[in-house]
Amino acid sequence: MTVAALPLADRVRAGDMRAIARAISLIEDESPAAAGLIHDIFGETGQSYLIGITGPPGAGKSTLVDKLAIETRRAGETVGIVAVDPTSPFTGGAILGDRLRMHTHAADSGVFIRSMATRGQLGGLARATSDVALVFDAAGKSLVIIETVGVGQDEVDIVRTADVSIVVLVPGTGDDVQALKAGIMEIADIFVVNKADRDGADRMVTSVESNLALQAFAEGEWRPPIIKTEATTGKGIAELWQAIGAFRAHSEGQRARRIRSRNAFRLRELLTHRFLEYVEREVLAPGEFEQVVERIAERELDPYSAAAEIMAKATGRG
Amino acid sequence: MTVAALPLADRVRAGDMRAIARAISLIEDESPAAAGLIHDIFGETGQSYLIGITGPPGAGKSTLVDKLAIETRRAGETVGIVAVDPTSPFTGGAILGDRLRMHTHAADSGVFIRSMATRGQLGGLARATSDVALVFDAAGKSLVIIETVGVGQDEVDIVRTADVSIVVLVPGTGDDVQALKAGIMEIADIFVVNKADRDGADRMVTSVESNLALQAFAEGEWRPPIIKTEATTGKGIAELWQAIGAFRAHSEGQRARRIRSRNAFRLRELLTHRFLEYVEREVLAPGEFEQVVERIAERELDPYSAAAEIMAKATGRG
Repeated sequence: MTVAALPLADRVRAGDMRAIARAISLIEDESPAAAGLIHDIFGETGQSYLIGITGPPGAGKSTLVDKLAIETRRAGETVGIVAVDPTSPFTGGAILGDRLRMHTHAADSGVFIRSMATRGQLGGLARATSDVALVFDAAGKSLVIIETVGVGQDEVDIVRTADVSIVVLVPGTGDDVQALKAGIMEIADIFVVNKADRDGADRMVTSVESNLALQAFAEGEWRPPIIKTEATTGKGIAELWQAIGAFRAHSEGQRARRIRSRNAFRLRELLTHRFLEYVEREVLAPGEFEQVVERIAERELDPYSAAAEIMAKATGRG
Repeated sequence: MTVAALPLADRVRAGDMRAIARAISLIEDESPAAAGLIHDIFGETGQSYLIGITGPPGAGKSTLVDKLAIETRRAGETVGIVAVDPTSPFTGGAILGDRLRMHTHAADSGVFIRSMATRGQLGGLARATSDVALVFDAAGKSLVIIETVGVGQDEVDIVRTADVSIVVLVPGTGDDVQALKAGIMEIADIFVVNKADRDGADRMVTSVESNLALQAFAEGEWRPPIIKTEATTGKGIAELWQAIGAFRAHSEGQRARRIRSRNAFRLRELLTHRFLEYVEREVLAPGEFEQVVERIAERELDPYSAAAEIMAKATGRG
């Protein structure tokens, strides 16, 4: 029997790159086979260390992640990267980007990159992202890096429930305080000020430090370090990797809590997705959902009453 | 009978500012009374024109919105502003910001600003935002401005389903192409390049124009204009207000579609929220959800199987 004839889950577990790519495609396409695959591989997951990286557009996250991947490879880690591009409907762009980025690591089968564009449905991207992380996990990648743009709730939830959350900031937008106000500050285990050769880098560091100074850290509590990097030249990447190691050692005792939080988020998200499918396919007649929406749009029915009616039908309780 | 003794819905409809504030608080607190209030006022909503404004942190959206509000007041409009701060758990900050911003409009009861911080639950912010918009709508505000930071899916959905979607960009992050890649480009009816006095403003405009040039616009189809503004000085704000007027006139025929899309999003979001409440309060025993999460975290159960089991219990179907 050739390797290709083995079930997909076995080939994923064996770390076969084409099988990993196939598995990810099933997840992206929301194929029913994806649920079966996750079921098959799930028992052996939970081994990878999840690194979540977020920050505003233009912060240089892709380059930073690529350099970090190279650094971790030096340390003997194997890496899967999920780059979340939350809003572009043009998956072509994401795939092209992957090709360019894979090229950086072309001679290195220890790094696998996949971009995910939005699925358009509530939470679809968060769901797909965590499934892809599971595929990398089962395939034996010791690290999974989840890179997401932006400050949306879903993206923050993705990054916050990783084992370590890294927030990348960039000087030069002029109003550092506004960037801080945007509110991804509270989820950071590590701050990175990238493009640190630019004007305003030190001011950005001071700005983050002032923000941290307002928080009361208990004795022995982790205080997020601020790492200055220049991703294009690789400067500071080794320090970032050390900071990740330090956080990992420090937080070992809290990892279980993060994993629970991650799985609670995931289960809720999956339930809501399944419920909507069930309502639109089985509870309501074809076209009925649209009719209800039309009645709401016409102000004949308010959304809360509509939801209550549908809930009563779906659950069989009045 | 004094005004204060009237039911809240009546007072909201009368445009009473304290009643509006009270109604918004009910929505923010996810009070059961909020559903009743929306039910009461819903029939008279649908009159306001919804302006959605998004863009990266630091783009100067707050100042832009404040200046736009002043401009619209000159045109005789009344305005409600919902400023969505999607990730900050520190609502104190949001409220302080409101006070500062309300000060700008202090002598003007035609403008009402309210910031919303995240509720932490899937879609909670989107739900609260649209409810607040309904309150402004019922209170007779002719315009509702929804201002959101970032490029997350929820925020994009909020802005995309407004009557007009405005994307604010800012020069100076250095890599305009990356900012474009972030993917909020596709939802814009109007582009604003704010802080247009800065280096790189023209390059940013060119960058957006190149992006638009790649798209095939049909004859008579709206082509998003690019407006340069300096919100701090007010430069370009009148042009932005004109562009909104032009889009409004152009798209009158498509407004019904936007309203349907908005209400479909809203109904789905409300259904998922109600379903999760139902599952955790009525289908599962106290603590059972956490036990299931624990079993997933321990890899005894995969999330898809867990979701399927809970779905079967919740719907009474195997």
